Amino acid sequence: MTQTREIRLKRRPVGTPVDDDFEMATISLPDPADGEVQVRNLWMAVDPAMRGRMSDAKSYIPPFALDAAMEGPAIGEVVASRDPAFRPGDLVFSRLGWREMFNAPASALQHREAGGLPPQAWLCFAGMPGLTAYAGLMRIAQLKAGDLVFVSAASGAVGSIACQIARNLGHKVIGSAGGPEKTAFLRDVLKVDAAIDYKAEPSLTKALAREVKGLGAKGIDVYFENVGGDHLQAALSLANDFARFAVCGMISQYNVTDAPTVPRNLTMVMTKRIRMEGYIALDHMDLEPEMVARMTEWNAQGQMASAETVYDGIERALDAFAGLFTGANMGRTLVRLTPG
Amino acid sequence: MTQTREIRLKRRPVGTPVDDDFEMATISLPDPADGEVQVRNLWMAVDPAMRGRMSDAKSYIPPFALDAAMEGPAIGEVVASRDPAFRPGDLVFSRLGWREMFNAPASALQHREAGGLPPQAWLCFAGMPGLTAYAGLMRIAQLKAGDLVFVSAASGAVGSIACQIARNLGHKVIGSAGGPEKTAFLRDVLKVDAAIDYKAEPSLTKALAREVKGLGAKGIDVYFENVGGDHLQAALSLANDFARFAVCGMISQYNVTDAPTVPRNLTMVMTKRIRMEGYIALDHMDLEPEMVARMTEWNAQGQMASAETVYDGIERALDAFAGLFTGANMGRTLVRLTPG
Repeated sequence: MTQTREIRLKRRPVGTPVDDDFEMATISLPDPADGEVQVRNLWMAVDPAMRGRMSDAKSYIPPFALDAAMEGPAIGEVVASRDPAFRPGDLVFSRLGWREMFNAPASALQHREAGGLPPQAWLCFAGMPGLTAYAGLMRIAQLKAGDLVFVSAASGAVGSIACQIARNLGHKVIGSAGGPEKTAFLRDVLKVDAAIDYKAEPSLTKALAREVKGLGAKGIDVYFENVGGDHLQAALSLANDFARFAVCGMISQYNVTDAPTVPRNLTMVMTKRIRMEGYIALDHMDLEPEMVARMTEWNAQGQMASAETVYDGIERALDAFAGLFTGANMGRTLVRLTPG
Repeated sequence: MTQTREIRLKRRPVGTPVDDDFEMATISLPDPADGEVQVRNLWMAVDPAMRGRMSDAKSYIPPFALDAAMEGPAIGEVVASRDPAFRPGDLVFSRLGWREMFNAPASALQHREAGGLPPQAWLCFAGMPGLTAYAGLMRIAQLKAGDLVFVSAASGAVGSIACQIARNLGHKVIGSAGGPEKTAFLRDVLKVDAAIDYKAEPSLTKALAREVKGLGAKGIDVYFENVGGDHLQAALSLANDFARFAVCGMISQYNVTDAPTVPRNLTMVMTKRIRMEGYIALDHMDLEPEMVARMTEWNAQGQMASAETVYDGIERALDAFAGLFTGANMGRTLVRLTPG
């Protein structure tokens, strides 16, 4: 028996979640049963999609249950195992975040290599955000030598990795983000060639044109689309013929209820022969080994910065989650559950 | 010396062209000089892009010269030749329409096969409209077995061919056009599986949903896009996952000056993993031999209807052109210059 803590959903939030929607429960964790593994989580990640699961609206993933620990990506270490596939000390990925320790059937866990990468990398550049960025650039946009790459939401969990992949592959990269702190992060940490603070620009199209020109280019060849609306309009305006747009997200449009802020120049898809393609990383899991190999190499060479906002301790998990919506966080938002 | 007629641009039209903007000139055509070929045009085609060339706005093709015969695709027969590559009786394609006869350097002419196809087919299903439809479906949309195909502007020069290609390849086809006469043409001549009169439908999305359901399908797999706006919105709404949109045109959006009528559901590009790609037939000339071979075969089997609106005589060429803008014409708009 071990005492451990987990965060439960007590009631479904209306609007912005408040403290009383959750409770921190301390539970006594029994020894693992036959076929079970006991895991101590090292890190968990929070992401905006969790807000959806707190409601009981119909979606492609079921809502979180009430009075039970929430779920989310986590990386942990096996403490005890009653399954032959796992041994104490093994590093494991699970969807069982929001808890410090847990027992789970072996089928709920996936091995991760302990060597070479910091454990939290499996939630960031070597995890789903990494695969999302990698698949978008390599398979959807079919990045090729000489392409100038524009990344929107470039300080975000996926955008920050997309910037670095493109840069590591020798491309010029223009990133956009909101506010001077974020654009400094783009320049200093992600080392993009040009950073646009879209909040400070009266016209995003003019700003992008200026940066494209500043890099001695005629236009952009690849757009890593996370935002939609004005960002998409600017990208269409500055696209070279045969540009490829990998549509990872259109976050500016998700909550639009009346007339959408849409590109006024969608006809450029035709005149410029643009290919615009939506994708979801889950469809591209076959790229994972290749992606992990490259990330491991780049990390070893000091070419993959940890783009993370870290909160310490499960008691700060809700602050971490709230930070996703205030725009305070940069890169992937992580909670360190066990001091390293 | 031969007397022949041609239509010249006398002054640049403001708004809708009027008769006084043009003149019919009768000229004396000398015998061809060395290296020249004399051609009697059999058919010429008119298309909306000619309106642009009547103005002197900057564009990717130069404006028509004043006081000179206009230009446009034509198919003709060699009358006399002083170039070894051409002989009397040869069928030739040129951009020298709007005239009954002309002398031109051999470099302005391309041979066409006289056998198998009616001469005007080289301006229609075996010409650029055919290549546009073929490249869009085969290369851009990558049509594959079982795809349900939606074609907008299905009664138009390109749409009417796209419908027939898809149908001939065994696909179910839904076409949309404006008015009962055009939808009857879709059903009776093009033999589509379902025809939508978009002018009679309060909601194009609901109409498309109804026809998709009527064909026992869940959604569309390929959208041949000619229109944009509401048509694109309906196509996005009814698209299956991984649908491919070949963007040939967005005619509803070309003259929009204020807020564009845009799809409110562009985020579906991501959630449904849609690939939307613009193209221009000129980039796909390598497909021409394959396209002509298939068209010739389909034509021989009675499976490629001539989707044409024909005006007789050069004196009706301006009526033919005007008909493009009143919505009166179906399929390709042709002028028969020499009675067959």
